[in-house]
Amino acid sequence: MPDPADALSCHPIAFARSPYARRIDAPHQPTVVQGTETGHAADALIVFVDGIPTEAFRDLAGFERIWLLFAFHRSEGWKAEVKPPRGGGKRSVLATRSPHRPNAIGLSAVELVAVEERALRARGMDLLDGTPILDIKPYVPYADAFPQSRAGWIDAIDATQGRQSAPGPRRPRTR
Amino acid sequence: MPDPADALSCHPIAFARSPYARRIDAPHQPTVVQGTETGHAADALIVFVDGIPTEAFRDLAGFERIWLLFAFHRSEGWKAEVKPPRGGGKRSVLATRSPHRPNAIGLSAVELVAVEERALRARGMDLLDGTPILDIKPYVPYADAFPQSRAGWIDAIDATQGRQSAPGPRRPRTR
Repeated sequence: MPDPADALSCHPIAFARSPYARRIDAPHQPTVVQGTETGHAADALIVFVDGIPTEAFRDLAGFERIWLLFAFHRSEGWKAEVKPPRGGGKRSVLATRSPHRPNAIGLSAVELVAVEERALRARGMDLLDGTPILDIKPYVPYADAFPQSRAGWIDAIDATQGRQSAPGPRRPRTR
Repeated sequence: MPDPADALSCHPIAFARSPYARRIDAPHQPTVVQGTETGHAADALIVFVDGIPTEAFRDLAGFERIWLLFAFHRSEGWKAEVKPPRGGGKRSVLATRSPHRPNAIGLSAVELVAVEERALRARGMDLLDGTPILDIKPYVPYADAFPQSRAGWIDAIDATQGRQSAPGPRRPRTR
């Protein structure tokens, strides 16, 4: 077995420019960003750092969605259980999408609007302004889309509350 | 803008035990693991390190799929463009799921079979034996499933080849 003390050191490949300045302002998933349901979600930018050449991302053109793997850079520490905003008491942190995790990495599927010279234009981003982005992958339905997957305690709460949606603000409270 | 030199240091929360010992043996996505199509895919284990208590993962019970964020620990270095196994010439690395990336982080949605005392039993895992796992998140369809998403150059190649699937071995060549 490899040594758990081994570390993987990650460096930002890009930074998010978004309307969300504070943690309390950020939606809890890209699908609940203001305007996502109406098709008028605000644009946001993913600006690449100098070390990433255009050749490394231009073929993202033509993909409808991309995965963003990012650092929850404002989160510090973690606990084994957290209280999700949906309610229902404490849950195992790894059974939630909480930003306070053993490794503070976030995962969001956002809409890709355009590939620009040194940036990507995206829609429905739930990232805070200045968030370091660690990786971008194409969203590929055969590997990523399982629309009928059972979702444990989340399904149970949705059934009780009669609504399938994430909580949290849908529009930025500050700019 | 934050400093691109800032690093996020990640430590393994678990290690994969799988039938795939060498890179050449590994399938190219969980959906092409041997038996996945027939429902008889081999089990694999995700064994937690001592620092992760049971309370941190037991509520994963009831989720049909989980995301594994893991380190491509056998990959070294990256180039702006790679040749995908599907063919069609070089593509921007960030428009592929290549293990050779600026930050060597992988993403796989695998079937969760059981939550055990210090481990998860999973099905359809495409990870090499000994792969360090950095994060586990519940698969939540409202945030993760977009079955109709256009997939750029991959759609184009699938249309030419008349088949929607990833290439790569479907069963382990070594044990």
